[in-house]
Parts: sequence; C-alpha cells; structure tokens
Amino acid sequence: MKTIGYAAHSADAKLVPYHFERRELRLNDVAIDIRYCGVCHSDLHTVNGDWGPQPYPVVPGHEIVGVVSAVGPEVKHYKVGDRVAVGCMVDSCQECDQCHNHEEQYCRNGMTPTYGAPDRLSGEITQGGYSKHIVVREEFVLRIPDSLDLSRSAPILCAGITTFSPLRTWNVGEGTRVGVIGLGGLGHMAVKLAAAMGAEVTVISRSTKKEAEAKASGARGLLASTDQAAMQAAANTFDLIIDTVPVKHDLNLYVPLLDVDGTLVIVGQIGPMEEPMTMPLVFGRRRVAGSLIGGIAETQEVLDFCAEHQIYPECQMIKMDEINDAFEHLAQGDFAHRIVIDMASLSVD
Amino acid sequence: MKTIGYAAHSADAKLVPYHFERRELRLNDVAIDIRYCGVCHSDLHTVNGDWGPQPYPVVPGHEIVGVVSAVGPEVKHYKVGDRVAVGCMVDSCQECDQCHNHEEQYCRNGMTPTYGAPDRLSGEITQGGYSKHIVVREEFVLRIPDSLDLSRSAPILCAGITTFSPLRTWNVGEGTRVGVIGLGGLGHMAVKLAAAMGAEVTVISRSTKKEAEAKASGARGLLASTDQAAMQAAANTFDLIIDTVPVKHDLNLYVPLLDVDGTLVIVGQIGPMEEPMTMPLVFGRRRVAGSLIGGIAETQEVLDFCAEHQIYPECQMIKMDEINDAFEHLAQGDFAHRIVIDMASLSVD
Repeated sequence: MKTIGYAAHSADAKLVPYHFERRELRLNDVAIDIRYCGVCHSDLHTVNGDWGPQPYPVVPGHEIVGVVSAVGPEVKHYKVGDRVAVGCMVDSCQECDQCHNHEEQYCRNGMTPTYGAPDRLSGEITQGGYSKHIVVREEFVLRIPDSLDLSRSAPILCAGITTFSPLRTWNVGEGTRVGVIGLGGLGHMAVKLAAAMGAEVTVISRSTKKEAEAKASGARGLLASTDQAAMQAAANTFDLIIDTVPVKHDLNLYVPLLDVDGTLVIVGQIGPMEEPMTMPLVFGRRRVAGSLIGGIAETQEVLDFCAEHQIYPECQMIKMDEINDAFEHLAQGDFAHRIVIDMASLSVD
Repeated sequence: MKTIGYAAHSADAKLVPYHFERRELRLNDVAIDIRYCGVCHSDLHTVNGDWGPQPYPVVPGHEIVGVVSAVGPEVKHYKVGDRVAVGCMVDSCQECDQCHNHEEQYCRNGMTPTYGAPDRLSGEITQGGYSKHIVVREEFVLRIPDSLDLSRSAPILCAGITTFSPLRTWNVGEGTRVGVIGLGGLGHMAVKLAAAMGAEVTVISRSTKKEAEAKASGARGLLASTDQAAMQAAANTFDLIIDTVPVKHDLNLYVPLLDVDGTLVIVGQIGPMEEPMTMPLVFGRRRVAGSLIGGIAETQEVLDFCAEHQIYPECQMIKMDEINDAFEHLAQGDFAHRIVIDMASLSVD
C-alpha cells in the first residue's frame, strides 16, 4: 500500500515528506487510516540519534489513532470502520513469560518498537504514525471506546500508559498519597489518572506557578521543590512519586518525601542521574524504580479507564507541515502539554 | 552501677579504658553482664565522626551478647541467668505506627541507637557494648536460644539482622535467585541466611578468589564482576541482590543483573553512590532500595532462625585491648569477616 509520511533522513535533519510502501496485509494484519498522531519527546530524541544510530529514513510517531480500512482474513476482533489505536510497540515474540504475562514491553526477545526497528518477519524497518496509514498485527491494535473523542486520545497511547502502568503496578487507590514531579505531558496525565483512582495527588514543581493548573487536573495542591521549609514539612508523606522530569536531575531532593517503603518511579529521564545519597533509601527502606510504557492489555485498560472517567490529555493540534517548528519548541520545553498532528492535513498525493 | 568500657574521647582518637556508671534499674530494665561484643564497621565510622559530630566520650558496640545479672520489678520475660542480646537500638517511642508494626528501626520519632544518643527519659548519652555491663529496657532485649553458641552469636545482632530483614521483606524462599555483592561481614551472613531459606545464591565479587569460600557458605557459585562476558550472560537472572559494598560504587554494573521487577537492596554503603543510569531501571521495571537493620521481633526471628539452622557468622575473637589494632585493620579492609571482643579480657578494676 502506497502511503506518505514525514521522515528524518539523518540525525538532526528536518522531517520531510516521504513516500513509502506499507506492507501488504498478512493474515492477522489490520490496516489503519491514521487520523491523529501524538508527538512525543522521544520522537525527537530518536530521530536526532540521541539514543543511538537510526536506520534512516525514520518516520516517527507512536501515539496513533485512526479507523480500520482493511483487515487480513484471520483478524478476529476488528472490522473496517472500527476506531482503533497503536502505541509504542507493534510486535513481540508472543512466546516468552513476559508476553504470556501481558507485559510485552519487557519481552525477553525484545519488543518491536513502532518505528525504526526491523519487522520480526520481513526485516523491513518499521515506520511510525507521522503518516497517513499503518499496518499492524491485530494483537498490537487497541480499541478506542465509543465515548472517547478520537481527536484528543492519541497521547494516551504513550503519555497515558507510561503513567497509568506504574500507578497500577504500585497499587494506587483510594487515599494513596501520590506525588507527581513535573506537570508536562506525562505529569498532567499522571495527575488526572491518579486522582481518578482516588489518590491524594500533589504536584511537585520548581515553583508555585502551575498551582492552579495542578488543581484543575485533580491535584490537591502543589509542593514547590525550591521551598525548603515546605519540602522538609512534606518529608515522609508520599507512598508513590511519579518522576516525569525528562533531564538529568537530583533524586536526593525527592526521595526523602517518600514514606517508609515508598517508591519513586522514574518515567521521564532516560539517561544519567546525579549522584544519589543512600541515606534516604536505607533509613526508610525507600525505593527508586523505573517503568516503561505498559503491556497491550494494560494499554487497552487505560483507554477504557480514560473513556469511563472522561480523562483527556491536554492537546494542542498542529498540521503535519508544522512538525519541524513543533520539534524546535519541544526541544526548548515551550509546550505545556501534548502536541497532536491532525493527519487530515497530510495528503497522500 | 559502676562499669568500664573502651571509649573514644574525640574524633580519630584511639579507644581507651573508660570508667563510667550504668543507670540504676528502672522498673522495666534488664541489667546484662556482657560476655561478647561484635565489632561493626559502623563503630569505626561513628567514633571517627564520619557520620557527624559525636557526644564524646563514646563507648561503641551494638552486637552485644551476655547474661542477665538483674531485672527491674516489672520485667516480665527475663530473669537472672538468662542468655540475652542487645542490638543496634535500645529504645523507640513505642507509640507510632512503625513501632506498632514492629519496625522500631523506622520509628517516627527516631529510635534510640545503642550508643551515642540521648536516653529518652534522662537525656544521658547511651553507651554501647565495648563494656562489661549494660542496662536496657526489656522491650529491646533479645533472647539467645539455648542451642546458639554465645561466643559466636554477637554479629547476628547487626550483620545478621541487616541481611535477614531484606531477605524477608522481599519474600526470599525456595528457588529465589539471590545475588550477594561482597563476601565480608554482611555478605557472608546474607549468603548463609538466603541459602537456608532455600534461595539459589550467587556471590558477586571482583575476582573469583573467594569462590571456594562462597560455596562453603552455601552459594551455588561466584560471579566475577570484572568478567564482562560472565556479567552479560548473567543479565536478568536475579530476583534480589543484596549489595553489601561499604564504599561508594557503581550500581550500573549490577542493576542489569536483575530480572524484570527485581530489586537491588543497599545495606553496605551509607553515603554517595556514583551517577546511575536510568535505562536498566526503566527497561525492566527494576528497583533499587535501601534497608536498615530490622525490628526487634525480626531480630529475635533471625536469632531463632540461626539457632534452628545452626548458622554462625565467621568470628575472629580479640581481647578488649586489641581493639585499636582491630580498627586499623578494619579500616584497611584486612578482616575477612567479623571481629568479636571477648569481654572476659576486660576487668572492671
């Protein structure tokens, strides 16, 4: 199938229109007309080569929503016209304990990312959602519930599941004291999801500038990390902290906020952290962990959860040809929340 | 009660004989003739002032075993002649959730360390076990089971409980894959205890030099951290790693050895660690935690466990007046395992 996308042809190159072929449908494949695709900071890192060399050209995008346009003969759960989504993975081995345990993101043989990775069967490089169409095996296609607005759902596929999964893993529920460091794309979703689970949510931010916004998202309040007295008073008061800060930072500031046996989960920074001190870990059996997106079943769960609670990411819609500007602003941290590309702005011809 | 101990009178000063008074018995106090006291690396750190200023003179020692010589009128569980022990704490508030939960080491109001801290009632500075006698409230006195050799039990009170507690917290049992970094005082106890719980234990050490010793302690084998091929082959193969290394080091070397959801528990180093990378945490939901000794009930449990399984620390006995030499060797890492002071070598006069 002929399609078009926006691709990077080398590290640090601008994205440009790129005509390419999507594979012919395999027996269990679903073809999707992409309607919207979210823009994730990791798209920028990946095409820039920040996380290693890439098999250019690379079409990024892993927050994909659209409508089924065709299905392979053995597809069981989807039909033409269904509203569907694709997230950060398009395949995994389906045979290991992790896959059997619905944690394909930790597949023993390595899950297949939505773009920039060899397809498990053909070896062809996967291409992402900054594109009109995509073809994905049924097992990695999600359903968009009827009550979820397609135009505002795309970031749930990455920002949503990335924060939902640790909230579930660490059993957040009624009354759990949850801190969320940073109120950007990931952070504001963490606040909304945790609040909907019944947690007492506090945003931890450098200043009190975002206090109103934090409360509007469902937080009880905002703790300014530059306010030493407030930080000391907040020591030992969190069961779980979701750390969405996407740059190198100092965990020593935040770990003492955890109660005994509390956990700080890193979901933002992929790279080095500043030197930690072990005292706050030892003198409170505190924990620091990481978490990566979520499995396919759990991704469906967050979509259903967002539909049930009418939770949406704050989205700013752009046209496809505005992507390079958007990347520049993203690199500078200018965007408050999540950018979504309206794929109607891209024509196949 | 008049007694004698060995005290430091200033940071970096040698320990010298020190005549002092133990308090008169309160209603719930137990007086103990100390028979043996273990020497912990933290004794050295504390008297040297490495962890902050001290209220000199300080008599260190928190691995104390002996025999009850007198009891207060309201003591319920001990009588003269009982074989007993005292560990790292001699009091806590007894009123907070942590105390009620038998985790006095994380007391909300701060537990009272066995030496160098103000007594909760009198404000008098506590003095430790490098001494002929000690007086401790009943709730912080442990019982030495009949089948446990008193002369080899002292290090269980710190090295034993410090490694036993995380093994219990992280549910180690039959078949759990446990790694133990370092085969010193803490490490060799971790190996023996984990093996007795049914775990598959591997010692992780710089070289293979200690392989025979690791196996003699109950480990299945030794993984040399300098052997890159072996370390890569061992990636994802541990459920729990007990990190006993008492100096600043690089966790990036060890965290990838954990399986998905595995935890590395720091029990050795109290201070800074080298810059960590977040990738092995994020791409495996791995965790790094700390753990501090254990509660009183759990300390009794490890004594009973060691009696049942006839587990003993490897002890090297010294006389009281050899302590300064021992500290020097300890500072240089010369001692293979645990030093114990035979208190018969100290006379009150």
